[in-house]
Amino acid sequence: MIRHVVHFTWSDTADEARRAETLAALRRLPEQVPGSLAFTVAPDAGLVEGNAHTVLVADFPDAETFRAYASDPTHLAVIAEHVRPILAARSAVQYEL
Amino acid sequence: MIRHVVHFTWSDTADEARRAETLAALRRLPEQVPGSLAFTVAPDAGLVEGNAHTVLVADFPDAETFRAYASDPTHLAVIAEHVRPILAARSAVQYEL
Repeated sequence: MIRHVVHFTWSDTADEARRAETLAALRRLPEQVPGSLAFTVAPDAGLVEGNAHTVLVADFPDAETFRAYASDPTHLAVIAEHVRPILAARSAVQYEL
Repeated sequence: MIRHVVHFTWSDTADEARRAETLAALRRLPEQVPGSLAFTVAPDAGLVEGNAHTVLVADFPDAETFRAYASDPTHLAVIAEHVRPILAARSAVQYEL
């Protein structure tokens, strides 16, 4: 199984309403793009200064299914319309569970 | 429960042996520092260009236990001696499970 983990840091110019709208768009992804076995979008708990703002964790049965998700047009549209316009930094890893 | 997720990107000057030594030191942490319920250190699967190199995922029963881990002298020594000298970039999130 492949676990996909992304950390998002949002732009200072993106207010809470704009960030919430982006999180909602990310949370709709598992209904719109097939393949994930589990899908979580969560805010940072605020315990440590300097953290990213949001984490996305999605599990896929194998690398091929992850790649199909990553290149799915609906996924790419969410990134282009909702994520990238307010993105200050992004860090990603996929690892074998 | 609090899940602590760190992405590490290692310096280009750190060769495979040096990185492996750092990963081994991170993997010894749950034996040396109390509190974690689960502890994983894994390499990026190499599916996507531009990813971080290593992910650490550790679960703690609550924020207080996470904070005790984070400030434990043995943990801080591992960061100072094994992580920071070869660290190019780091991204972290803690989130409620």
